[in-house]
Amino acid sequence: MAPSKPKLVVPIDLKKKPWEQKLPLHNRWHPEIPPVATVKTGQVFRMEMVDWTGGAIKDDNSASDVKYLDLSTVHYLSGPIRVVDEDGPAKPGDLLAVEICNLGPLPGDEWGFTAIFDRENGGGFLTDHFPCATKAIWYFEGIYAYSPHIPGVRFPGLTHPGIIGTAPSMELLKIWNEREGELEENGLKSLKLCEVLHSRPLANLPSTKGCLLGKIEEGSREWEKMANEAARTIPGRENGGNCDIKNLSRGSKIYLPVFVEGANFSTGDMHFSQGDGEVSFCGAIEMSGFLELKCEIIRGGMKEYLTPMGPTPLHVNPIFEIGPVEPRFSEWLVFEGISVDESGRQHYLDASVAYKRAVLNAIDYLSKFGYSKEQVYLLLSCCPCEGRISGIVDAPNAVATLAIPTAIFDQDIRPKANNLPIGPRVVRNPDIPRCTYDGNLPITKNLSATGS
Amino acid sequence: MAPSKPKLVVPIDLKKKPWEQKLPLHNRWHPEIPPVATVKTGQVFRMEMVDWTGGAIKDDNSASDVKYLDLSTVHYLSGPIRVVDEDGPAKPGDLLAVEICNLGPLPGDEWGFTAIFDRENGGGFLTDHFPCATKAIWYFEGIYAYSPHIPGVRFPGLTHPGIIGTAPSMELLKIWNEREGELEENGLKSLKLCEVLHSRPLANLPSTKGCLLGKIEEGSREWEKMANEAARTIPGRENGGNCDIKNLSRGSKIYLPVFVEGANFSTGDMHFSQGDGEVSFCGAIEMSGFLELKCEIIRGGMKEYLTPMGPTPLHVNPIFEIGPVEPRFSEWLVFEGISVDESGRQHYLDASVAYKRAVLNAIDYLSKFGYSKEQVYLLLSCCPCEGRISGIVDAPNAVATLAIPTAIFDQDIRPKANNLPIGPRVVRNPDIPRCTYDGNLPITKNLSATGS
Amino acid sequence: MAPSKPKLVVPIDLKKKPWEQKLPLHNRWHPEIPPVATVKTGQVFRMEMVDWTGGAIKDDNSASDVKYLDLSTVHYLSGPIRVVDEDGPAKPGDLLAVEICNLGPLPGDEWGFTAIFDRENGGGFLTDHFPCATKAIWYFEGIYAYSPHIPGVRFPGLTHPGIIGTAPSMELLKIWNEREGELEENGLKSLKLCEVLHSRPLANLPSTKGCLLGKIEEGSREWEKMANEAARTIPGRENGGNCDIKNLSRGSKIYLPVFVEGANFSTGDMHFSQGDGEVSFCGAIEMSGFLELKCEIIRGGMKEYLTPMGPTPLHVNPIFEIGPVEPRFSEWLVFEGISVDESGRQHYLDASVAYKRAVLNAIDYLSKFGYSKEQVYLLLSCCPCEGRISGIVDAPNAVATLAIPTAIFDQDIRPKANNLPIGPRVVRNPDIPRCTYDGNLPITKNLSATGS
Amino acid sequence: MAPSKPKLVVPIDLKKKPWEQKLPLHNRWHPEIPPVATVKTGQVFRMEMVDWTGGAIKDDNSASDVKYLDLSTVHYLSGPIRVVDEDGPAKPGDLLAVEICNLGPLPGDEWGFTAIFDRENGGGFLTDHFPCATKAIWYFEGIYAYSPHIPGVRFPGLTHPGIIGTAPSMELLKIWNEREGELEENGLKSLKLCEVLHSRPLANLPSTKGCLLGKIEEGSREWEKMANEAARTIPGRENGGNCDIKNLSRGSKIYLPVFVEGANFSTGDMHFSQGDGEVSFCGAIEMSGFLELKCEIIRGGMKEYLTPMGPTPLHVNPIFEIGPVEPRFSEWLVFEGISVDESGRQHYLDASVAYKRAVLNAIDYLSKFGYSKEQVYLLLSCCPCEGRISGIVDAPNAVATLAIPTAIFDQDIRPKANNLPIGPRVVRNPDIPRCTYDGNLPITKNLSATGS
Repeated sequence: MAPSKPKLVVPIDLKKKPWEQKLPLHNRWHPEIPPVATVKTGQVFRMEMVDWTGGAIKDDNSASDVKYLDLSTVHYLSGPIRVVDEDGPAKPGDLLAVEICNLGPLPGDEWGFTAIFDRENGGGFLTDHFPCATKAIWYFEGIYAYSPHIPGVRFPGLTHPGIIGTAPSMELLKIWNEREGELEENGLKSLKLCEVLHSRPLANLPSTKGCLLGKIEEGSREWEKMANEAARTIPGRENGGNCDIKNLSRGSKIYLPVFVEGANFSTGDMHFSQGDGEVSFCGAIEMSGFLELKCEIIRGGMKEYLTPMGPTPLHVNPIFEIGPVEPRFSEWLVFEGISVDESGRQHYLDASVAYKRAVLNAIDYLSKFGYSKEQVYLLLSCCPCEGRISGIVDAPNAVATLAIPTAIFDQDIRPKANNLPIGPRVVRNPDIPRCTYDGNLPITKNLSATGS
Repeated sequence: MAPSKPKLVVPIDLKKKPWEQKLPLHNRWHPEIPPVATVKTGQVFRMEMVDWTGGAIKDDNSASDVKYLDLSTVHYLSGPIRVVDEDGPAKPGDLLAVEICNLGPLPGDEWGFTAIFDRENGGGFLTDHFPCATKAIWYFEGIYAYSPHIPGVRFPGLTHPGIIGTAPSMELLKIWNEREGELEENGLKSLKLCEVLHSRPLANLPSTKGCLLGKIEEGSREWEKMANEAARTIPGRENGGNCDIKNLSRGSKIYLPVFVEGANFSTGDMHFSQGDGEVSFCGAIEMSGFLELKCEIIRGGMKEYLTPMGPTPLHVNPIFEIGPVEPRFSEWLVFEGISVDESGRQHYLDASVAYKRAVLNAIDYLSKFGYSKEQVYLLLSCCPCEGRISGIVDAPNAVATLAIPTAIFDQDIRPKANNLPIGPRVVRNPDIPRCTYDGNLPITKNLSATGS
Repeated sequence: MAPSKPKLVVPIDLKKKPWEQKLPLHNRWHPEIPPVATVKTGQVFRMEMVDWTGGAIKDDNSASDVKYLDLSTVHYLSGPIRVVDEDGPAKPGDLLAVEICNLGPLPGDEWGFTAIFDRENGGGFLTDHFPCATKAIWYFEGIYAYSPHIPGVRFPGLTHPGIIGTAPSMELLKIWNEREGELEENGLKSLKLCEVLHSRPLANLPSTKGCLLGKIEEGSREWEKMANEAARTIPGRENGGNCDIKNLSRGSKIYLPVFVEGANFSTGDMHFSQGDGEVSFCGAIEMSGFLELKCEIIRGGMKEYLTPMGPTPLHVNPIFEIGPVEPRFSEWLVFEGISVDESGRQHYLDASVAYKRAVLNAIDYLSKFGYSKEQVYLLLSCCPCEGRISGIVDAPNAVATLAIPTAIFDQDIRPKANNLPIGPRVVRNPDIPRCTYDGNLPITKNLSATGS
Repeated sequence: MAPSKPKLVVPIDLKKKPWEQKLPLHNRWHPEIPPVATVKTGQVFRMEMVDWTGGAIKDDNSASDVKYLDLSTVHYLSGPIRVVDEDGPAKPGDLLAVEICNLGPLPGDEWGFTAIFDRENGGGFLTDHFPCATKAIWYFEGIYAYSPHIPGVRFPGLTHPGIIGTAPSMELLKIWNEREGELEENGLKSLKLCEVLHSRPLANLPSTKGCLLGKIEEGSREWEKMANEAARTIPGRENGGNCDIKNLSRGSKIYLPVFVEGANFSTGDMHFSQGDGEVSFCGAIEMSGFLELKCEIIRGGMKEYLTPMGPTPLHVNPIFEIGPVEPRFSEWLVFEGISVDESGRQHYLDASVAYKRAVLNAIDYLSKFGYSKEQVYLLLSCCPCEGRISGIVDAPNAVATLAIPTAIFDQDIRPKANNLPIGPRVVRNPDIPRCTYDGNLPITKNLSATGS
């Protein structure tokens, strides 16, 4: 009488490389990547996944692997999964509701990493302040994570998949490539100076280098064609993808638009925990993991529930319901940023600048408690902190806030009236894995000493 | 033995105009506005305040008052309050910790308003979509608000002051005026096209028009000089000010930098409730109200706890602790936006564009449940929804999300598999107060029919 | 257009005695106490109330007022209120839904008290351990309470009315008087030894002494008759009454059975805060206060929603919905008790014995942190602690638990591995108001030194 | 560099019987049951366990297995585990802090059961109302459970071990056997009538029948001696044991007194979910499962933190800290009971009677929504409902409450003003597995038709 236990539809063997898995992985979005499995609606099934780098980052004390990571190969995704109900496969125009029944690290692989990428190789939100490749390793004790590299903090994970999305149609793929190509081509002119200084890649256009297309044989004619069209998995887009919504944990439901028959959804980039914004870029506690999922097809749901926000009916975004289980924190310390940059220059209602300043404020503040600024940058990338757009209308300043649960620290981090002058109270600064920066872009001034 | 009850240091008489109050109000930031009262640390005291417009918006069925509001007169603030402890007044370089012990509407004035400003008179986050002056009135039933103009929703307020800040020093004032003047002068060139179309004021520089400086007599020589220097209260800045942090409710603590002797802090712009972003600009449920506060001085706290993020030691931001009491919602529906605008154009990691799209997505979705889009725009401005920066590093797309607690609606707003085709289910569209837009800027295209 | 502000239907003048109020109070339940006001369904109205003793307990440093309080006069209730809708008054068999829109202390009277009653005058849950009249005064700072008598704790109140109930019918009154009379008469034999030792009154039968019946003139013939029938307000019963449900705060809804035309509901005994069980009897933070309420009549609701649990259709209990706003605590320390009493004797699945032991365990534990046991007894009566029936089936032991939010203390109260031996760390034992016990019942042995 | 993954110290093979497991189980408490493994403090380790009946209850549609279960064999526990730190094994007088890092069902065995025991074989809290053996099967979808036998409800589990405890010393064992023997012998006289009618076993004294003592060979001389002394695992006691505290989930910490060298703690009786009280006796969702634990020894902690509440230093109880992760419910419907029993008889401040009535009230209420009363009885045993002691001092009525989160139902269960007369709205009454009651004790009157 019992329903069978969750059916394992995508197994991962961690002793094998990403490209050696029984069911081949992929690291691009393309409508023609063949599904590796079919699931029925209502059935609970299990998908396993490698970490986003496919095992390239090691549990050791060197950040070289971070510095020299080949970003053309990420993210390794499991799937695509074709979804059917009694009326056949999901069809373009439907909505695919995916419920996350359970998820977690892969048994036997209970650890993760958070990293700052080198400014010349990916960078991060604060790459102009922190240009060096840096790494922190996290170990899990059940729901808790702790790091030998960031001592004195421990927190329960709100685990979630960074990436979940459906396959785009050729038409949608074309829209992506055109609009991102346009940015790559003309973007520099249109950027503000501060953004140029960032020097991070504007977009990541299709490239055959590093391209993995599941069952499509590498080097084949078909592969060649598809690799030149297939979208990179870095940004979130209309199909979901790299949304990095930290609350998509157990019990959440994701309503994805369907663009190809079968929906062909994929998932990957599991995060043990992440802060809003995932600021250091490789910023969550990245790990391998598993998902137990259940699907439902809402026939005709795109038209019914989504409104295109652009020139074609494809300009839509998924909808999410977040689940009822999350760590309960009662006290939060909140840092604010306004849209004035570090040089003192005024920006117009720019929430990105405001959030950058909120994060910088938080980093400086917490560094007074014995941490190096890079440790805090890593911590705020992966701990359960909340990044809010508090005010977006009061010209010229957007106000963004970053709220940090105080309970994750083993010391009281609130301002105190009768404190003695603060120098770092407890030095929390062990030998954090870090490479030098060999580039020649200037580090942002008034924080130039931050990393040291 | 009992401590005296909260001492009323700023009374408001609602039958009088803002400029007729016993303790004069002010609507600018300037170091030389004289304090109206002195409080001791540790003492609980009460400040009353008018609504931000000083009673200009009426509880009626016309939006004319919104359309023609004289924005040069806002925000009416109560204060400044000078703070002393046993060692004398707060000094520049100290931190002023202000705890919000209690707050609420003024007894007998239990109502509020939310408005969209006309595109030619202030506008709002979505002014290119919703250019018409519009208004919704809210009535309070204890902790709950409901509106005859947006039927079918009711929610508990997370009441907070939109503005709380210390007086700037002359040096800080000069920084503000220079950087905002620079934006006003050169901003247009540096803006992106989409921002230009917004056509909202870039900044609001000092002006004698409408200027109210507390005890400084209007028209006097001193007033003339100060009015030409005094900063407008529209944006949040280094001194706090218009932060619009919706969680600053009962039990919160605000650590404000002190720039002048006595700290001279002011507060105003009480919100019965607000959504993150306060998107329609006059977007909270705006009301008159009272605060019960308690202060503490952290001597030397600026140096100890704040790190300047700019060329001078004055480039700091306040820190906040949020209180332990807030409405407890278990289910949230989350809308996502990416940094691609409504024309389909790609922006580079722009959280403002992403949030705009998330809000537009939510408006369109909820308008399927019997509401006009303008009703939803007003609702999302003032209900307890959360605006998050979910991903800010995955070039080229920033991902922003807007989470709405489902319990505020009297219908189930979640997507359903077996729904009948949706037309507006229940028409929730009463005679909402609204003016026509007489300007000539084009309304953003693919949402042009939104208001109807 | 505005709805009128909450209509004040029961004003209280704190300068007057309970029996001098404009609208007379009452301290008994009787169907014939005339209503003092009529309200319509849907209308928000305000009721004010004295504290349950009507001002007999003073804000001073003596517990004499507690020791000698005349318990025949409590609780002073405001009302009865007659409720009507468009179909006329509520009728027997209806349900009256009362929503608590708002509530709080009376302005200008922001303080409260918690007391242990003398064993010969009311006693409390632990009267065999703590026989002395004792008192703690609490002051309010907005949502927070603190006590000079129990230093080092501060917590937000979950304010609620201890008593809310409808008037009983004569038939129901008769049932009450018979069953409680039966207990008074035959109870002692049926009690267990441990209960006898308690020596608290078994029941409080009707008495003319101290009786106050609203508009019924004291000493009149009618008064005489009614006073001899009218039920005391001490226990909760079928009509609601003294439920002491600590979560009935803002936003709660109470579904009361209607036994007489008009429902005639009354309320009183406001608590700023209370722990589950209200263990010291005068155990909440008792205060005067106000309620803003809104009523609805569910016609025929008793039959529809309530099932009699006894020989007549009147043996029902109210139903409650608790509101969405309460303090958010993340960490709780939990004490357990089993149904073995302090003498080591086994009781059979007795949740009262188990809870007593859980409370005693908590008192002893917390007294290691610098408090006297009486201070902790008072604290656990009024702080927001949760008393749970964890296991009620595992013969012979019931398991009850008492969960205490750790954040209310200014020290870390959790067990620690590397603590030095504990003596009272900080002496938290000021001159707490306390009388001697002049009775001759023995104090329970192995805790005999507890109070000192 | 990585810490080894959680070390599996007690494996379970579900294909084998409880007495065939590699590391033998036990179902009694006795100081001389040899430890099956040793763990070091600080090390995360994994213990697996069978369900409390060791697989005797099947996933099928018959309740015969429940009716005829041999209760002499329960509960099957895993352990004992000996705990050591660098100073050697835990010693009597220490506290053992056990942190629950993670827990869940055993992979491949994702289902559980809830049962009512026959009145002649164990019974339950309401055995006089529901004397028939009945069973509901639950299936898990990740964090959620649903039952084909109780359709229309689904809830996230707050999974916890029902039993966790240390080995008693011989002295403590003797105390247990004497006090429970005394109850068994003299209890009937001292019971109240209503309790006698319950006719459940008063206590369960040691018996060789069904006794399993781990590595001690059954039938050996040693076994014989120990079996005659060893305490049954049914009740919670000084060593922890069957506490059934539903919130002891991920992140909780349990401070257990140590009575024998090594602490020798055992655990079992995993619950996917349980309501406070576990009212139907086999009332949680019972399942097999695993725990990931971490231990710490607090040397001398018993004296430091626990106060004996009885004639010897052994009369103590464990302390608990509950974890930060639990399902977040915003709306609760609360049922109240007072200490008047179903015959209308008044009891004196009896929380057990009050809670019984609260549960009966809830059962009757929910049975109006299409369920049979037995279905609701099962549901309230296992869903995340909270049982509170609200008032324990207002003679003669104790007030107990049962709060039910409304979100677990697929219909709105709140009272409504404009409902049509209620008959069962949706019949939720499938073929629930149920046996007849063959005993001859009368079923409690005014609910006699309840089960049908």
